[in-house]
Amino acid sequence: MSLLLNCLWKVSLIRESKDSLLRLVPLLISERKSSWGTKKQHRKVKLPLYFNKMGDSKTEEILAPLRASVKEQGDLVRSLKADGAPELDIKKAVAELKTRKKILEDKELALAPATFDRALMEDLLKRRFFYDQSFAIYGGITGQFDYGPMGCALKANMLHLWRNFFVLEDNMLEVDCSILTPEPVLKASGHVERFADLMVKDTKSGECFRLDHLIKSALEKQSADPKMPVALKNEIADIVVKLDGMTKDEMAALLKRFNIKSPLTGNDLSEPIEFNLMFSTQIGPSGLVKGYLRPETAQGMFVNFKRLLEFNQGKLPFSAAQIGNAFRNEISPRSGLIRVREFTLAEIEHFCDPSNKSHPKFNSVQDTKMLLYSACDQMDGKSPSIKTIGEAVNSGLVANETLGYFMARIHLYLLNVGIDSEKLRFRQHMAQEMAHYACDCWDAEALTSYGWIEIVGCADRSAYDLTQHARATGIRLVAEKRLSQPKQVLVTRAVANKGILGKEFKKDAKGIIDYLEKLTIEDVDSLENELKKNGSSELNIDGQSRKITNDMVVVKREQKTVHVEEITPAVVEPAFGIGRILYSVLEHSFRSRENDQQRNYFSFPASIAPLKCCVFPLSGNAEFQPFVQIICAGLRSEDVSHRVDDSSGSIGRRYARTDEVGVPYGVTVDFDTVTSDTATLRERDSMKQIRLKISEIPTVVKNLSSGKMTWAQAEEIYPKFEQQEASKEA
Amino acid sequence: MSLLLNCLWKVSLIRESKDSLLRLVPLLISERKSSWGTKKQHRKVKLPLYFNKMGDSKTEEILAPLRASVKEQGDLVRSLKADGAPELDIKKAVAELKTRKKILEDKELALAPATFDRALMEDLLKRRFFYDQSFAIYGGITGQFDYGPMGCALKANMLHLWRNFFVLEDNMLEVDCSILTPEPVLKASGHVERFADLMVKDTKSGECFRLDHLIKSALEKQSADPKMPVALKNEIADIVVKLDGMTKDEMAALLKRFNIKSPLTGNDLSEPIEFNLMFSTQIGPSGLVKGYLRPETAQGMFVNFKRLLEFNQGKLPFSAAQIGNAFRNEISPRSGLIRVREFTLAEIEHFCDPSNKSHPKFNSVQDTKMLLYSACDQMDGKSPSIKTIGEAVNSGLVANETLGYFMARIHLYLLNVGIDSEKLRFRQHMAQEMAHYACDCWDAEALTSYGWIEIVGCADRSAYDLTQHARATGIRLVAEKRLSQPKQVLVTRAVANKGILGKEFKKDAKGIIDYLEKLTIEDVDSLENELKKNGSSELNIDGQSRKITNDMVVVKREQKTVHVEEITPAVVEPAFGIGRILYSVLEHSFRSRENDQQRNYFSFPASIAPLKCCVFPLSGNAEFQPFVQIICAGLRSEDVSHRVDDSSGSIGRRYARTDEVGVPYGVTVDFDTVTSDTATLRERDSMKQIRLKISEIPTVVKNLSSGKMTWAQAEEIYPKFEQQEASKEA
Repeated sequence: MSLLLNCLWKVSLIRESKDSLLRLVPLLISERKSSWGTKKQHRKVKLPLYFNKMGDSKTEEILAPLRASVKEQGDLVRSLKADGAPELDIKKAVAELKTRKKILEDKELALAPATFDRALMEDLLKRRFFYDQSFAIYGGITGQFDYGPMGCALKANMLHLWRNFFVLEDNMLEVDCSILTPEPVLKASGHVERFADLMVKDTKSGECFRLDHLIKSALEKQSADPKMPVALKNEIADIVVKLDGMTKDEMAALLKRFNIKSPLTGNDLSEPIEFNLMFSTQIGPSGLVKGYLRPETAQGMFVNFKRLLEFNQGKLPFSAAQIGNAFRNEISPRSGLIRVREFTLAEIEHFCDPSNKSHPKFNSVQDTKMLLYSACDQMDGKSPSIKTIGEAVNSGLVANETLGYFMARIHLYLLNVGIDSEKLRFRQHMAQEMAHYACDCWDAEALTSYGWIEIVGCADRSAYDLTQHARATGIRLVAEKRLSQPKQVLVTRAVANKGILGKEFKKDAKGIIDYLEKLTIEDVDSLENELKKNGSSELNIDGQSRKITNDMVVVKREQKTVHVEEITPAVVEPAFGIGRILYSVLEHSFRSRENDQQRNYFSFPASIAPLKCCVFPLSGNAEFQPFVQIICAGLRSEDVSHRVDDSSGSIGRRYARTDEVGVPYGVTVDFDTVTSDTATLRERDSMKQIRLKISEIPTVVKNLSSGKMTWAQAEEIYPKFEQQEASKEA
Repeated sequence: MSLLLNCLWKVSLIRESKDSLLRLVPLLISERKSSWGTKKQHRKVKLPLYFNKMGDSKTEEILAPLRASVKEQGDLVRSLKADGAPELDIKKAVAELKTRKKILEDKELALAPATFDRALMEDLLKRRFFYDQSFAIYGGITGQFDYGPMGCALKANMLHLWRNFFVLEDNMLEVDCSILTPEPVLKASGHVERFADLMVKDTKSGECFRLDHLIKSALEKQSADPKMPVALKNEIADIVVKLDGMTKDEMAALLKRFNIKSPLTGNDLSEPIEFNLMFSTQIGPSGLVKGYLRPETAQGMFVNFKRLLEFNQGKLPFSAAQIGNAFRNEISPRSGLIRVREFTLAEIEHFCDPSNKSHPKFNSVQDTKMLLYSACDQMDGKSPSIKTIGEAVNSGLVANETLGYFMARIHLYLLNVGIDSEKLRFRQHMAQEMAHYACDCWDAEALTSYGWIEIVGCADRSAYDLTQHARATGIRLVAEKRLSQPKQVLVTRAVANKGILGKEFKKDAKGIIDYLEKLTIEDVDSLENELKKNGSSELNIDGQSRKITNDMVVVKREQKTVHVEEITPAVVEPAFGIGRILYSVLEHSFRSRENDQQRNYFSFPASIAPLKCCVFPLSGNAEFQPFVQIICAGLRSEDVSHRVDDSSGSIGRRYARTDEVGVPYGVTVDFDTVTSDTATLRERDSMKQIRLKISEIPTVVKNLSSGKMTWAQAEEIYPKFEQQEASKEA
């Protein structure tokens, strides 16, 4: 069975065959602590400037043969499918296709100029406590992070914006459901059976290793031996790339062939074990009710479907939304915030008529330009291309308006919170990555120093989830759809003779009557046939065999006029990994001053900046205090988050400190303030200043922060403050 | 050992002896499902109108002997303590005091007029999906609730207001820490050992029962037997009241004496078992790292103390804050949102100098009038009294300004979100309720149909938590305090002779050197004495005995000038149970129209109302649509949450529907709109309407919702819409 964790953070186990380019990208790990020991790599990571690169003919020359190689294999996959080749052959061809895609993408990344130093950013994040490892004073736990004041405010602002941008804008039905989830719910969703990773245990110490990571690390180590023959080296490189698609048995064979032992102790390893990634616990004191911490927030919305439909007065379409924490017990968490054990999701489940996926507001977004990486382009070894979502839906590239609407909205939200449009693409799942029920699926991917990472998934999940829960509970999770015109239907029912059944079965009669009422047309037909043939029929009801005779049941067939039909809604699901978006925003916003590589800052959009404003008394002079108080009171009354920095450093050092945490605006109270009731207002990115009345400052900062005024507009209205930043900030 | 869960939702195990009046109040359970079977009681619950009642002489006449009885016992407790009586005697006297207080409070509640029908409210909450039982389609789990769109918005708005009111206003350092917590952290905090309830198991079915609830229920049932002698009946009544203070053995004796069996099966019961209320799980795949879901958010702030102090540039005081979920595995959850397994807390930890608990902003709140129920008044059988917080701090009733500041701020926040000031009191813990380290502790209690329930706790926790974590980790969790003037101190150190130690102990020398460096002054003195006496000393280092001789260590004593001293900060902790506040707000906001008891609504303050505005086209006329669109676009651009209600009911029915979910404002588009570009604006509580230009509507609603304009002001500016509500809403 293939592994299920390909979809990096949002694990939808039904997307079994999903590819993960990402896993194949060699991760440049910079962790404080991991199961692999304690190493810290400082490496300049190369980021492509996507659009520049695409026009570069030299680069294209190098990439051309790699592109051709991908296309060749893509064509092979297509023809195998067209010819109805055996599944195994297709699978092998797809694995090879992935290998070639990976080589192409690695090369693309390698050719881009180095512009980002992750260690430098991580040092700042740690020093100013954006986030850090949880329980560090107790030695820490991998894969768990605490957000400090700046990270927490950033996250809270992103979520506030999310709520306004999605929930408020589209009148979504936001819910807040339980994290602890009883087992039957997650059995129905498939998580209990299939939400698993392969691992091996050190047979003596009990230490666990994620199997694919372990093999990769062991083979790379063996491969580093200069005495290894080149042929074997190449074979190993090939194996490493293909690991992602391998079965349990194939990986077990590799363990034996390469004699792989525990990397920590050299002890023998167990056979591969499937490890369920949900945290389990008991609900209630008896120990009998097994529960899990939810691995996603989606199920809470599905199990509340009926209540939500009723809240919406029975009408489709509507969207449910939920922000909340989810958990996965990673075998060996890594890559900082990218792969963690506890994370915040913001998910939308849009319930709609499966036969009509148009969207009333699609017009409002149709001109949105996006970088789309179609399945077809991927198989052809091409680059992604810019299209409007309107074109993409019209041409059939994106399956329907609803999916397109959400993709565009996701795109706009991500730009709002500070994702760089040049490092954002929407990648379509290739046919073999998609679950059998899905008709289209696109991941928003951000380019980071870890490669392209999935930050939002957007899938048309069809009726899968509601169907599964309906099957497990016996409760019909359907909506009524008014027919454009009434229609005649033949209703076939098995009607119980309650009197005879009651006499015969006493208190058990009710169960039999209920059973008969729920029979499908097919069941009724076959029951009727049997009764005709044998005069009786053995029914299995709640595990008991019941003999029903001819006189106990009458089959009725009636023509009925119906005005509505019942449908199981289709679901389009945009699912946001908040920690991953936040991390990508951090990378995309990290800047160094041109003249000083040691002066780093975050150029967050004001809307998500942890603090909007900092107030600086130029010195400790007591005369400044009342003015600082007045400004702060004004900022508070405008709900502008701010701090006073009255520490003793020079004003330049203090500006630099607030730049570090991405505060977009700074107000400085100086000697002129005392006589003129004015102060300066400084903008972070340009370091330019203007001078204005202190009474105006709160409103101006509020308007700048909320996007009602631009800095350029402010500079037009108010006089520039001409003192040179450079000399001042020295 | 006494039970620890007295403090209803915020379990601070160190507050061991804390009373719980609340537990003693017979809960009027209205649950769908509980371990006790499925019963649903519909009872009118009496709520006192607190202030009216206090002036009522008839009522006071009835209560006077009960008050005297409390005072008599309170005086006894005081004199026992003054005389240094044995602890057991004091405990017994306190239990009797609680009994008498309970009788007094029950009588007070019984004398108040019945004004609230919980079943009516719960029906509305369920019907309009404010919240409901989680996983109901799977049979549901007790003690877990899902918030639907209205409940979720209410909660989100309350939290948004909380963040503005506390975090923004006082520049608190908000953090967002992990829920999964490794065992050592919760061992240090005391939760692993002591966060437990007593339960018994059905010896055959394994069903569990919370011991105190079980005994209470069984005795009440036995007591209902008309054949029971009056004396025994009275004794049972006495036992039931005293259950809360009983030990495990005392309760075990009751099980035997009254021959109590499983209420569901009649089977025998096990001996009482201490059941830890934390949900446990394993972190990571090895099964070796035990973890718990946090039972409170506070520990995350304590373990991050050093990072937060550094973030605050080393300065005290500062406040950390955290909003997040916490979990407790209740044995038998009950009382709806009041006692649940999963709940949201908003906690503040204010770290300050233990020798200076003044607060710079205390002046701003000192005139806040609050209903204070002092420990002294409780022991005297008196009622609570209204005081300003300034008086309370000045007179020493509230221990210090910082505690007083937070109490006043809590009070103001609660009124902002809709807690009725007449049903809110601050109850001081009596001396014997408080943990040994705490110097003062006050609970904000709301009067609900469940009695007075604790909704916010506010305690001066002194240095307890930081000290515990420092002890467990060996990391000094202290702040530096600048001395007003430098002082001379005698520094005593045991200085190792590294050469000799190295020669003697080889690789173990480092451990010995570290050990010597960490010795306290007392340890150094005693080591010196022993070396002088015997020439050597046996040290136990990491479980190994090490013989240290005279030549290996020199004791040095030096005078040093120090400018700072290290202090372990004191902590003042306001802790908010969001679900409990939300539930109390629901009860306090629930209203029926005067002329129609079946028309119920919630009079939420606009700031927390789930939706601020509803837009009604008077009919399905297509001409209305463009105006509805324009109004909605305007509301969106002002970030005003709203919905369109274009369902087919009469306008009166539709108003009633939106009143039910507490929407404060409604805009109606009618035939005049089409010709005059105006619409009506309706206010929920008064049902009055005004008429204004549709272009003005979004700003007016925004200003009304944010408190910048009152409805009275709006009525002055805009013409009243005179059509009679009554006829219109018929």
